[in-house]
Amino acid sequence: MTGSLYEEVQHFYGRQMRHLDEGEVAEWAATFTEDGVFAANARPHPQEGRPAIEQGAREAARRLAEAGVRHRHWLGMLEVTERPDGSLLARTYALIVATPRGGPAAVHLSCDCEDELVRVGGELKVRHRRVRRDDLPA
Amino acid sequence: MTGSLYEEVQHFYGRQMRHLDEGEVAEWAATFTEDGVFAANARPHPQEGRPAIEQGAREAARRLAEAGVRHRHWLGMLEVTERPDGSLLARTYALIVATPRGGPAAVHLSCDCEDELVRVGGELKVRHRRVRRDDLPA
Amino acid sequence: MTGSLYEEVQHFYGRQMRHLDEGEVAEWAATFTEDGVFAANARPHPQEGRPAIEQGAREAARRLAEAGVRHRHWLGMLEVTERPDGSLLARTYALIVATPRGGPAAVHLSCDCEDELVRVGGELKVRHRRVRRDDLPA
Repeated sequence: MTGSLYEEVQHFYGRQMRHLDEGEVAEWAATFTEDGVFAANARPHPQEGRPAIEQGAREAARRLAEAGVRHRHWLGMLEVTERPDGSLLARTYALIVATPRGGPAAVHLSCDCEDELVRVGGELKVRHRRVRRDDLPA
Repeated sequence: MTGSLYEEVQHFYGRQMRHLDEGEVAEWAATFTEDGVFAANARPHPQEGRPAIEQGAREAARRLAEAGVRHRHWLGMLEVTERPDGSLLARTYALIVATPRGGPAAVHLSCDCEDELVRVGGELKVRHRRVRRDDLPA
Repeated sequence: MTGSLYEEVQHFYGRQMRHLDEGEVAEWAATFTEDGVFAANARPHPQEGRPAIEQGAREAARRLAEAGVRHRHWLGMLEVTERPDGSLLARTYALIVATPRGGPAAVHLSCDCEDELVRVGGELKVRHRRVRRDDLPA
């Protein structure tokens, strides 16, 4: 299944967000580099390093499980730019759809996402992610 | 327009879901194999075979037409895995957006979808689909 | 980053809609041909030519800024057909997600979109776009 870089990034996001939404927090954290950073305008400080990223996902998964809500993270409208150093700048729109047990499903949040992706052992990883929720100041 | 398998599946889904949403029920059914199965946690029994799949789509189209509602099925966050026997496992998120005449549009359902795809006469077909609505028990 | 035509169209739409949503109205207009036409069932007359397309986007951006609302345009479920004259017919679903400052995000509109794309100086441009909102008569 050979394809382009653009497609590889799409495929990567499919796997990555499914890990998050399924609560596979170690697999989710492993899609970032060891020193990966996840910054968001919804949080006062970025998550820095895989342990912090995994811990953040674990807490979010626990809260959702307690509330009986399923989240699905959609990334779309991808733009990919290759940088001189070989890293990639990937820009996407992000939509979080939330469904409580018994329904109804609804849009929960709309964001934009800017990733710096690098290749580690042949696989794409996020070295830096910045997510900005549309409802909050940038 | 040569492309990869991943892209071929994306393109297939664009065509397939447009057939469904346009009420082209014979064309929709023809995107499944003759013995295709469509299982869903919203139904007590799977639809088995093209005639049953077509009949299900026809009834759904009639109900929507009577209610004056348009559905659009979005599939995204695709992951594709090739199996040793040459079939494909394709996993997606599914979002159904509903718009009544006179609006407003809203998310109707959020689901995940797992397809077994095979090639028949050169074209991809769904041999088995399993859709799970997020609001119902898996 | 070599890829197929299908992917090139996906990438084009990522750039194009980001220009619109960021209020980059000149860059948005430049994604149409000089004589590009943007027709919509929500408007009595099509926008004809880049100046009209840019002016329409400028007014929409101003209204959104005044209302404190951010729009994100998602295009998906792409089908691409090459025509004998080398132009492309690209069909998509379009979803507009709206977020007022302070939230909450919600689906604003669901549409379908049919583009005639041509290559100008190596780059894809929209020569004709027709958008149909699902809540209005086609």
